[in-house]
Amino acid sequence: MCVLGLGLIGGSVLQAAVRAGRDAWGYNRSADAIAGSTETGYDTGTDLVAALTRAADRGALIVIGVPMPAVDSILDAIAQYAPNNPITDVVSVKAEVAAAVARHGLSARYVGGHPMAGTNESGWRAADPDLFRDAVWVVGVDDGADPDVWRQVASLALDCGSVVVPVESGEHDRAVARISHLPHLLAETLAQAGASGGPLALGLAAGSFRDGTRVAASSPTLVRAMCEGNADALTDVLDEALEVLTRAREELAAARSTDTLVTAGHAARTAYENHERFDITDIAPGDDGWLEALRSAGRAGGVVRQIRSASPG
Amino acid sequence: MCVLGLGLIGGSVLQAAVRAGRDAWGYNRSADAIAGSTETGYDTGTDLVAALTRAADRGALIVIGVPMPAVDSILDAIAQYAPNNPITDVVSVKAEVAAAVARHGLSARYVGGHPMAGTNESGWRAADPDLFRDAVWVVGVDDGADPDVWRQVASLALDCGSVVVPVESGEHDRAVARISHLPHLLAETLAQAGASGGPLALGLAAGSFRDGTRVAASSPTLVRAMCEGNADALTDVLDEALEVLTRAREELAAARSTDTLVTAGHAARTAYENHERFDITDIAPGDDGWLEALRSAGRAGGVVRQIRSASPG
Repeated sequence: MCVLGLGLIGGSVLQAAVRAGRDAWGYNRSADAIAGSTETGYDTGTDLVAALTRAADRGALIVIGVPMPAVDSILDAIAQYAPNNPITDVVSVKAEVAAAVARHGLSARYVGGHPMAGTNESGWRAADPDLFRDAVWVVGVDDGADPDVWRQVASLALDCGSVVVPVESGEHDRAVARISHLPHLLAETLAQAGASGGPLALGLAAGSFRDGTRVAASSPTLVRAMCEGNADALTDVLDEALEVLTRAREELAAARSTDTLVTAGHAARTAYENHERFDITDIAPGDDGWLEALRSAGRAGGVVRQIRSASPG
Repeated sequence: MCVLGLGLIGGSVLQAAVRAGRDAWGYNRSADAIAGSTETGYDTGTDLVAALTRAADRGALIVIGVPMPAVDSILDAIAQYAPNNPITDVVSVKAEVAAAVARHGLSARYVGGHPMAGTNESGWRAADPDLFRDAVWVVGVDDGADPDVWRQVASLALDCGSVVVPVESGEHDRAVARISHLPHLLAETLAQAGASGGPLALGLAAGSFRDGTRVAASSPTLVRAMCEGNADALTDVLDEALEVLTRAREELAAARSTDTLVTAGHAARTAYENHERFDITDIAPGDDGWLEALRSAGRAGGVVRQIRSASPG
């Protein structure tokens, strides 16, 4: 398999795939960013055409690991040099990637992916073959997905130590707006509110501020790429949050109470802590209605830990 | 010294004080909540009058460790049974406690305190003599503070392993609204936004959601007491946050950009990470202008690690 873009996520995929015994090579635009990678035994380089030609020769799975703004130019190259290969990606939004794939005529062999893991660090130097261990890896189940490509993408996720959650692109984007992109916007807001209090406020800050602003330490470029690539869904969720906070503000100012907000927030956090996954064991990719069945199971909290063989037709 | 209220904070103060070699005893209204405390060697009981009479006999420092809503009734008892004792508190707001102390005619021997430490747990069972190690402990420097009481309160903080930040009550409340109370409101909001996405969103949630909602797991009663006791300052800071988020919403919807928010948020988090304390070494409680000098040093990021002897008059 061939990983294009060797930052934190792409680099970790390459390292995890190699450790799982896969034949895997990677491409990165900047040589500096992956300095030392070949010396430590990884098959990496800066020649995109060479990486793709090799992928085409072997029919290898191509993993797009670049940030959203660079996806189009990578797809240009794939369409030219490896148009028939199975393709996935590890970009944090899915509808926009799927649309770009469609514009390039590559949808038939594309199944999107999104490993829900990361750190505040970025780049190959922060890559870690254990990054995806026990994480959730979203694998797309959009209409028209090829069951064979789906198996390949899901296998990669399982090889990296993750469990697979089958989700349609639009649903994925709306969900991650809630649990990944909104947290970033709130962290950036909280950081500003703290810093506006000067050295006194920053000096008094303890655990709640430290944890609440942690992801504001992430690279601004990556946070922007992630949030702006999901602008529509994120705007909707931000409106929801603004409504909740505005109502809380009124209750606090008028009645000196935070009852509504705190009661609902505590119940929500409890629901999160009590959330339990279940294993999806009865759906084989390629079976009649498999996409709808996986979508519905994923929506209810199901995960795939083992890929079922197709039922005899 | 005498600790009134043996929950997480009061209980930890008692334990830390005993370990520091102090003669310390505690009172708690509920016997169940402190079950086992005497068996493990702590001098605790449920007789408030006995605890206060003993404090009055020995001139002991009284530490008010109950939540804000119970402060008034504790002050009633202090005014009756130990009206001349030095008093401090570990409540998370300061202006409202100072006002209650004044209403009870106890201001002359009161110096407020607030250790900036906690966990999501509550109650004596969660108390820990190490809770305050390397934490910041605010000690009040309001007009009229008695230098002798100030020394006693600051010594307690140092004995518990903390550094002392001298802050006036109103300034304290405005600062903690930013770095302690707003984080709770944002966490409660984020938790709701996540749970509104159902099992799919909760199942995809990873580090940013987990950390961003951590404090929403705290006891709703304690979160409410803390936030509602600081309603005015918190309303102002919430308005600031709403303005920042509303502008971010407009930029996201109109220009699909999060530039302003993310750039400022990252800079603010960096300022927090780079924040450096300095030691206040040249101000002795009781010297001319000591309160103004400590206030100004605390505002600039200064901490007291050792209490200076008063200059010879």
